[in-house]
Amino acid sequence: MSAKRITIDGNQAAATIAHLCNEVIAIYPITPASPMGELADAWSAVGRKNLWGDTPEVIEMQSEGGAAGAIHGALQGGALSTTFTASQGLLLMLPNMYKIAGELSPTVFHVAARSLAAQALSIFCDHADVMATRGTGFGLIASASVQEAMDLALIAQAATLEGRVPMLHFFDGFRTSHEVSKIEAVDEATVRAMINDEWVDAHHRRALNPEHPLLRGSSQNPDVYFQARETVNPYYSAMPAIVQGAMDRFAALTGRQYQLFDYRGHPEAERIMVVMGSAAQTTEETVEALAAAGEKVGLVIARLYRPLDSSALLAALPATTRALAVLDRTKEPGAGGEPLYKDVLSAVAQGLADGQAAFETMPRVIGGRYGLSSKEFTPGMCKAVFDELAQERPKNDFTIGIHDDISNTSLAWDASYRNPSAGVTGALFYGLGSDGTVSANKNSIKIIGEKTELHAQGYFVYDSKKSGAVTVSHLRFGPEPIRSSYLLDEGDAQFVACHQERLLQRYDMLAKAAPGAVFLLNSSAPPEQVWTSLPRPVQQHIIDKKLSFYTIDAYRIADEVGMGKRINTIMQTCFFSICELLPSSEAIDAIKQAIEKSYGGRGADIIKRNFSAVDAAIDGLHRIAVPEQVDSSIELAPAVAEGAPEFVREVTAEIIAGRGDALPVSCLPVDGSFPTATAAWEKRNLAQEIPVWDEALCIQCGKCPFVCPHAAIRSKLFDPAELQGTPASFKHVAARGKEFPEGWHISYQVAPEDCTGCGLCVDICPAKDKKEPGRRALNMAPQPPLLEQERENWDYFLALPDYDRTTLALSKMK
Amino acid sequence: MSAKRITIDGNQAAATIAHLCNEVIAIYPITPASPMGELADAWSAVGRKNLWGDTPEVIEMQSEGGAAGAIHGALQGGALSTTFTASQGLLLMLPNMYKIAGELSPTVFHVAARSLAAQALSIFCDHADVMATRGTGFGLIASASVQEAMDLALIAQAATLEGRVPMLHFFDGFRTSHEVSKIEAVDEATVRAMINDEWVDAHHRRALNPEHPLLRGSSQNPDVYFQARETVNPYYSAMPAIVQGAMDRFAALTGRQYQLFDYRGHPEAERIMVVMGSAAQTTEETVEALAAAGEKVGLVIARLYRPLDSSALLAALPATTRALAVLDRTKEPGAGGEPLYKDVLSAVAQGLADGQAAFETMPRVIGGRYGLSSKEFTPGMCKAVFDELAQERPKNDFTIGIHDDISNTSLAWDASYRNPSAGVTGALFYGLGSDGTVSANKNSIKIIGEKTELHAQGYFVYDSKKSGAVTVSHLRFGPEPIRSSYLLDEGDAQFVACHQERLLQRYDMLAKAAPGAVFLLNSSAPPEQVWTSLPRPVQQHIIDKKLSFYTIDAYRIADEVGMGKRINTIMQTCFFSICELLPSSEAIDAIKQAIEKSYGGRGADIIKRNFSAVDAAIDGLHRIAVPEQVDSSIELAPAVAEGAPEFVREVTAEIIAGRGDALPVSCLPVDGSFPTATAAWEKRNLAQEIPVWDEALCIQCGKCPFVCPHAAIRSKLFDPAELQGTPASFKHVAARGKEFPEGWHISYQVAPEDCTGCGLCVDICPAKDKKEPGRRALNMAPQPPLLEQERENWDYFLALPDYDRTTLALSKMK
Repeated sequence: MSAKRITIDGNQAAATIAHLCNEVIAIYPITPASPMGELADAWSAVGRKNLWGDTPEVIEMQSEGGAAGAIHGALQGGALSTTFTASQGLLLMLPNMYKIAGELSPTVFHVAARSLAAQALSIFCDHADVMATRGTGFGLIASASVQEAMDLALIAQAATLEGRVPMLHFFDGFRTSHEVSKIEAVDEATVRAMINDEWVDAHHRRALNPEHPLLRGSSQNPDVYFQARETVNPYYSAMPAIVQGAMDRFAALTGRQYQLFDYRGHPEAERIMVVMGSAAQTTEETVEALAAAGEKVGLVIARLYRPLDSSALLAALPATTRALAVLDRTKEPGAGGEPLYKDVLSAVAQGLADGQAAFETMPRVIGGRYGLSSKEFTPGMCKAVFDELAQERPKNDFTIGIHDDISNTSLAWDASYRNPSAGVTGALFYGLGSDGTVSANKNSIKIIGEKTELHAQGYFVYDSKKSGAVTVSHLRFGPEPIRSSYLLDEGDAQFVACHQERLLQRYDMLAKAAPGAVFLLNSSAPPEQVWTSLPRPVQQHIIDKKLSFYTIDAYRIADEVGMGKRINTIMQTCFFSICELLPSSEAIDAIKQAIEKSYGGRGADIIKRNFSAVDAAIDGLHRIAVPEQVDSSIELAPAVAEGAPEFVREVTAEIIAGRGDALPVSCLPVDGSFPTATAAWEKRNLAQEIPVWDEALCIQCGKCPFVCPHAAIRSKLFDPAELQGTPASFKHVAARGKEFPEGWHISYQVAPEDCTGCGLCVDICPAKDKKEPGRRALNMAPQPPLLEQERENWDYFLALPDYDRTTLALSKMK
Repeated sequence: MSAKRITIDGNQAAATIAHLCNEVIAIYPITPASPMGELADAWSAVGRKNLWGDTPEVIEMQSEGGAAGAIHGALQGGALSTTFTASQGLLLMLPNMYKIAGELSPTVFHVAARSLAAQALSIFCDHADVMATRGTGFGLIASASVQEAMDLALIAQAATLEGRVPMLHFFDGFRTSHEVSKIEAVDEATVRAMINDEWVDAHHRRALNPEHPLLRGSSQNPDVYFQARETVNPYYSAMPAIVQGAMDRFAALTGRQYQLFDYRGHPEAERIMVVMGSAAQTTEETVEALAAAGEKVGLVIARLYRPLDSSALLAALPATTRALAVLDRTKEPGAGGEPLYKDVLSAVAQGLADGQAAFETMPRVIGGRYGLSSKEFTPGMCKAVFDELAQERPKNDFTIGIHDDISNTSLAWDASYRNPSAGVTGALFYGLGSDGTVSANKNSIKIIGEKTELHAQGYFVYDSKKSGAVTVSHLRFGPEPIRSSYLLDEGDAQFVACHQERLLQRYDMLAKAAPGAVFLLNSSAPPEQVWTSLPRPVQQHIIDKKLSFYTIDAYRIADEVGMGKRINTIMQTCFFSICELLPSSEAIDAIKQAIEKSYGGRGADIIKRNFSAVDAAIDGLHRIAVPEQVDSSIELAPAVAEGAPEFVREVTAEIIAGRGDALPVSCLPVDGSFPTATAAWEKRNLAQEIPVWDEALCIQCGKCPFVCPHAAIRSKLFDPAELQGTPASFKHVAARGKEFPEGWHISYQVAPEDCTGCGLCVDICPAKDKKEPGRRALNMAPQPPLLEQERENWDYFLALPDYDRTTLALSKMK
């Protein structure tokens, strides 16, 4: 059993199995499940075959309702069929899911679990969508990691074909769907061995077929519907054993053994947590640490949530169980407890009454919510739950991971608690969306995964502002499989790279550096000036934590070797060069191989330039001697401009600064209502170049304020008599147009810190200079020399009185 | 407090409140909620006003998804808004419901609960649809009767406006939505007193408005979504007390007091049932009877299901509670217990752990399913559950109301058990869909409700075959409010009327007659011949039960007074004349008033004819002296024709005969797959007239077989050499058309027992007789003289070989 190791994300893991085991795949991609549909589509487009040598037909419908209907039809037509979805998409599938289950049609839906839109939309993970399906009659099986997303996808597929109960296979959106991890591949031979073609033939034979017609989809009346609904009981009763059977066969083939409810921890545990999804990984890691320290704690990992096998759940609980905490990654307002909690409590109470439980007195059972919308669930939070279970009257209906100062549901936790993580290296990379940092890191993980014995994990945090906003890559490497399904936090990173100098002032990124860690900065400052260019808190961290400090001017090197602004290869080379996860020469070879693989199709020149970048990177990397004293007076930039209103200062600014996690419940509106015009206070200062107005050329058409997506360029009309204390560089010119009062002026002004430098206003400007081709009434110019001047002009412009057309017309009549 | 009494159904009760309390009503009608939308639409169309003097805007959308979206928008726009729906319609509203609740928008959705389509569709009642919404954050409140549908609609409306948690108000589809009942009207003054305009103003002020803009419907990230989701907790915690407050205010206004969980039964009850919906009425009636007989039994009626107030639930349970049976009107395959059961079990277990319960040891808690798709729930079934609770090890996860010979979930029950029902008269009416029986009965209930002190209830059972199929009206009258939310069963009817002679042979309707009851038959036989025209089992019932037997030839009378085939007024007059619920003259006056009200707009002549029908009915009614001996040899007709296959004989035939309720689980297919072509075995024999083929006129266009909706007219081509033993009246003629073999003949033949007599084939027949206008190649002729002959011809026709065009073409080539 020496399986091939591959480094992929959860979506790819599940989609690989799904594509191999189906004939019709109906999709309507939705975040975070989209890559499953996209991959399946791409694979079928290049003719990739399923287990039976056919290329699955991938159909994109016009909504998830359509996708579910198409699958329902395909299943009735005898095809093996699947889909991938999440969140509201899954809700739209519900009507068909009741039908598919009612007709005992085997299928596996793969779901990257995602929050439902309530007070606000969220693309991140919780189990609200999955829980909304629990009445449908689908089986529900949860994967807790990328490895499991592949393994349980296959186990679910085998079980549904054998047992006819359709399955919903889910894993945590983003945390698992987008986590890149080194796993053991499930090869086609294993899939072949798991799927018995007799089941497939039986499904084909059940198809609606004019040659041997059947009536389905009929209507039933009060006389027989109830009886018909109860006919399926034997199928549901059999299903848990069928799933366990598939798990056992899978174990024989791969060595990875799963149970419907897997127990971990102290054999005589008194305090037990029950968890489903990726949090099981974190809890497992924490339970091992606590149990090793002698604490009698344990964990039950819920894998097969439906059909619920209460006996299996009870059997997983040790006889010593005294208190149980059941964690739900969902909230059902008004339910008085979330689904998994109620299911476990019911099973335990009923099992005790039936004499099925190993213990004799009813354990204390509490339920809590965690991780809504991908809120972090850390070892410290996990330990807090175990600590709560040790209380005489532990809190029920609690929350963990937030500070609830309104309903006091939240448990306090020790944010500094860490599980031992021998040999694990954490690395953090701060880049900008679209600067290549994330792709380079995915490449690095693959290199480490494939070229070393190390296990690797990558998780990528994006700002919702997308292009031009920060991305933070969280990487871990270590000798054992990595189960830390949470971000690197304060002091966790042995390596911190800042790929964008300007982010240094916005994020306190070195707070996450471990003592003695490495800090790599892409800086345009010459090595001898880098230190003094740092903000004061950055210098302080470097000195206090005794960081090794490296710099490189990656943009200069990229420019010199003809790579434009593509710095990813350069920064990647520096990472490998400093970290020595591989011998330096091997690492460089691996990077160059990756370059050949990625850019082979684009010609020898591109490859050559990248190779040059690698070589130049090693030469351009400088270690900076760290002074003993902080000497900078540069402070971190405030998240919002001065004078912002209270809500913006206290809430919006914290969110912008990346400290939203710390906001207590009381800071958030109860019904999703936020004040408007708050974006004005966030000075993103993204533009490298800003448009400059040429008042002589301008024909005053008004198109530039009209098209600006950020309202960063505006015009104003005014009586020049009102101009007082006008900045020297403030431009204005007589207004054209009979509708304006005579003698009035007009000004077009750019907000230099709001402008993103997209150049749209310049592109559409129709006022061209006849003498100088290419010159218009708006032209891009470098921001740095202009910034202070234009900021002053903008403030002056904003303060000028604002006339609407009615006012103007009235003033004209006077 | 002398409220006006009205006789209406549950849909009208709820819709009345909804129309009075809303500004925008977005609908997409679905059975059994359609009448709510239709009434609201009709009321707004005639300008009926809401509480604030405005006519609500009723908008029909293109699906329930659209209706929910429209309401979401209307609520955000500040309008009071509602909808009415059920089943899959409710599922399509789920995405918007999560949003509406997340944004704390007050609204009440009124739902006539209906099964979800699984192995088959059903338009009848269970709570699967409602339970699918329990994660949305909507409050859920259940009405158990028509009275409650009006009362709790208002209580829900007041509570949502005060507490901002949106409410789903539901009642049992058909059983409550379509039950006609005499109730105390909730008048506008009560509605006015319940709704505080400050709450309405607050809702209006929360509207999105460009004059004071707000941002809603945004996206939230992992940093703050969880906190924002927890902000609503205080609203959900407050809601139960707000609902109870509304219930208390309502009690002060009307005298009708509700509790979140209402207790009924023995004050020291040991065995308790927890029930929600109309079954609570039946259970209440049964608990009173059992408790009066000294049995320590009780009932908790769940009204406010969400937000679940566990304390209120616990407070409703007596300290003597030893065993609880929680009944769910839904099935969640694989859940190991249905929702209400798990909620009650969790609340009890948690309450005991928290020291909140009045009892000290954990009661035994079992859960069961009942009433799926309007399956009957009777006092006998109710008693069976209490009997089960008395067992040492009562069965959990049971079913009641069916015989489950597959999984053995079902409890046995005593079908003969009856609650005392002092003074209640049960009356049964067998009619045909569209013959006016149901409308007449609705009128009769109104007359009794309005003209007497009696309480009245009407429930109408339709065959899904609609027009031409049987309708059975179940009426009850009595001095106390009627809580029997189940059908009249064997021996329950003091009055049985058969409005259609031919039904006598198809249904054993007198099995339901009580000893000494009245049997009224509409018969074309003269009084002296009626007895001998009866089937043998009918005579037997009349003699054994000493029934009073009346007949009338209603079709003859209707014809004579110029009413065509409208017999409803005549039969209604006979009912009042025999039953003497009112003094005869008063009853006749009331019927005539109802006629004037119904037909006033159609002219004096129509009214005069109806009046004549009333008078003639009294004259035409004959009491038949009952002989002492059965002398008929006519047997009940078999439900299906001879030679039917096993499934048709054992399953289809039982369903057709009205005995489907007795079919055990093993008779039904597991996945909704039925054999096809079973309808051929059901000889409905509906047609009074059938089409007769004129082979001389026929142009052989083939349109008649093409348009026949029942495939009851067909054509066949054959070589006349194949004709052997041909019936004398069998018609055939040389086939026209070059594509047919030379010398072949064609025949068009009608299946006289399958034909419904709709006349469509005649209407489209293009072959007209030039000499005799109106005569075509197909003409309707009375069935009775033709039946035997055409049956023989049809059998002969069917047995002739069937050639398809390929065979014909081949034979021609030879």
